Amino acid sequence: MSPNVTGTPGSQSTLGPELPGLFARYKGLVEVGLSRAVPESSGDDIFLPLRYHLGWVDREGVPAGSSFTQGKALRPTLCLFACEALAADPDRAIPAAAALELIHNFSLIHDDIQDQDLERRHQPTVWSLWGLPRALVAGNGLQSVGDLAMLNVAGDYVPTETTLRVSQILTESYMEMIQGQVLDLDFESRTGIVADEYLQMIAYKTGALIRSSLEIGALLATGDPLAFQAFSSFGSSVGRAFQIRDDFLGIWGDQTTTGKAAGNDIRRRKKTFPVVFAFENARGKSREELLRIYGQEELTGRDVEKVLDILDEVGAKDQSYAITEASAHEALEALGPITLPTWAQREAASLVGFLANREF
Amino acid sequence: MSPNVTGTPGSQSTLGPELPGLFARYKGLVEVGLSRAVPESSGDDIFLPLRYHLGWVDREGVPAGSSFTQGKALRPTLCLFACEALAADPDRAIPAAAALELIHNFSLIHDDIQDQDLERRHQPTVWSLWGLPRALVAGNGLQSVGDLAMLNVAGDYVPTETTLRVSQILTESYMEMIQGQVLDLDFESRTGIVADEYLQMIAYKTGALIRSSLEIGALLATGDPLAFQAFSSFGSSVGRAFQIRDDFLGIWGDQTTTGKAAGNDIRRRKKTFPVVFAFENARGKSREELLRIYGQEELTGRDVEKVLDILDEVGAKDQSYAITEASAHEALEALGPITLPTWAQREAASLVGFLANREF
Repeated sequence: MSPNVTGTPGSQSTLGPELPGLFARYKGLVEVGLSRAVPESSGDDIFLPLRYHLGWVDREGVPAGSSFTQGKALRPTLCLFACEALAADPDRAIPAAAALELIHNFSLIHDDIQDQDLERRHQPTVWSLWGLPRALVAGNGLQSVGDLAMLNVAGDYVPTETTLRVSQILTESYMEMIQGQVLDLDFESRTGIVADEYLQMIAYKTGALIRSSLEIGALLATGDPLAFQAFSSFGSSVGRAFQIRDDFLGIWGDQTTTGKAAGNDIRRRKKTFPVVFAFENARGKSREELLRIYGQEELTGRDVEKVLDILDEVGAKDQSYAITEASAHEALEALGPITLPTWAQREAASLVGFLANREF
Repeated sequence: MSPNVTGTPGSQSTLGPELPGLFARYKGLVEVGLSRAVPESSGDDIFLPLRYHLGWVDREGVPAGSSFTQGKALRPTLCLFACEALAADPDRAIPAAAALELIHNFSLIHDDIQDQDLERRHQPTVWSLWGLPRALVAGNGLQSVGDLAMLNVAGDYVPTETTLRVSQILTESYMEMIQGQVLDLDFESRTGIVADEYLQMIAYKTGALIRSSLEIGALLATGDPLAFQAFSSFGSSVGRAFQIRDDFLGIWGDQTTTGKAAGNDIRRRKKTFPVVFAFENARGKSREELLRIYGQEELTGRDVEKVLDILDEVGAKDQSYAITEASAHEALEALGPITLPTWAQREAASLVGFLANREF
């Protein structure tokens, strides 16, 4: 049975790029969880860079005003949604939701070191302000704060066994994420990557934590293995839709909404889905051009234009759309075997539609 | 009541530098735990650098022969010892012991990145072989492998509640370790550090994981809070003795046993205990010299000689000895309130004596 969802997943005409109501619905809970989990900073300690990275304070520790959390808080939102959709009070998932956001942010701090990125969310990155050694330990610190939040999820409605299980799921998915990062690093020095390999890599790198967010939310609500499996599959497909859309925006996104220059991922020679697809499908002179361009240390504006032309020629844009839409559809199909309240079905469709069509 | 120990803690004449029997006693268990915890490598994945770092394989993945584990495996040995000293089968602590060794090794991989060290244990460091991005994720991977081992300690004799508690203790102590790393980084750019501050820093940076190793071993054996407290205090003192001896060896150690050049820590401008003590106690021209020398980016051989003279002048060597011996004594005192079998009392004394007097 296919879930009775409103709207057409993946259809840009009916689903706008606004953040679905789900994000606003859980924003307060995510903030509560995060502020409980992350210790105050006494100034010159590990917690100042963490609070800065989370967008709470400036580099001097001065509160940053209204923008309490930056970013979409996708993972905690998914976790709280799964929990409430399965008829449990989402309050019990607050520490878990915070943990997921913290683990995600920890990976961003380390990503910025690896990629030597100077800016994130229009602000200087942690390593660019505090240097590599401190950013490295700050990232590690954020992970531990997250791990500890998850270990502390036990409470009136969450038995110890479940707490242990969700901590294991988090750690296992985090190891998959690392495995994905390693594959991604391998891809940098390879040209023969095929689309299937790429999809496997992002299933680890991006998909695992998104999937585990939903698994954890489901497990905190119910011991029903069918519900767990449904949200797990939902998460895998959501992760793919999310990442391929991310790849799309990294090349064809609007700078004013993404905060990144158009063609940014090409300039940085990132082997995201459209480029991998082009490498697999370009023939003759186009293929030679691709090999030449990606064989260089730095790309000129002309190189970027040329790559964009080749992506056009092989239909990489359409293919990216197609995979995103198929994944969005599969996500909702995955919820088919279980019965969810109407509001949850509607929110799932709205969420998936947003992730597949978002402009930011 | 003071424990009835044989031997005189901290007395070099009676206690040689050989590794106490305790290490050999638990070596097999530690190896079993580690090989269960760390997945096989399929070649080009995260686990090759991990297995290499642990000394199991060379950089190509070829088994390294007889030297299954390198390093002393101090933390797992302490954990297994606490467990068995409290009359429990140490087998139940095997996953925890492995976790502690993995977390320690994870911190070494990241330390080598931070310090840009090219060698560890006479081998090229992970980052120097695989590059920073891969070493960074390899370190993170090792931490997760460790976390997962600890989360899997539950079994016939370890209830879920205890598993959750030991995972929390591990994570909390790991956060203290990070806090110590941050303080240590701060010290690099400061000159007014006093000995007390330094001792607080190492209580976090080195002491926390050593202390938690013993706490975890105790908790896996018994729910008795007195036993937990005794091993916790024992661990804090052991940690201090261990680190101050480490600092001693970093300056006055024999290159053939430590694997590091004599005066190595001075050449690297490390503010270890003897140097901090000298900064606090040197007066007049000696103090000016210290400030001048440590104000430079690089130290000459002559600078190193000069610092060694000043350390001599202020009695830094004797003071390092004195603190190590006092800590060793306090460690054994801490076990006083509990009753331990004779073998355990003897092993505790032997262990403490070794840590305070070791040459490697």
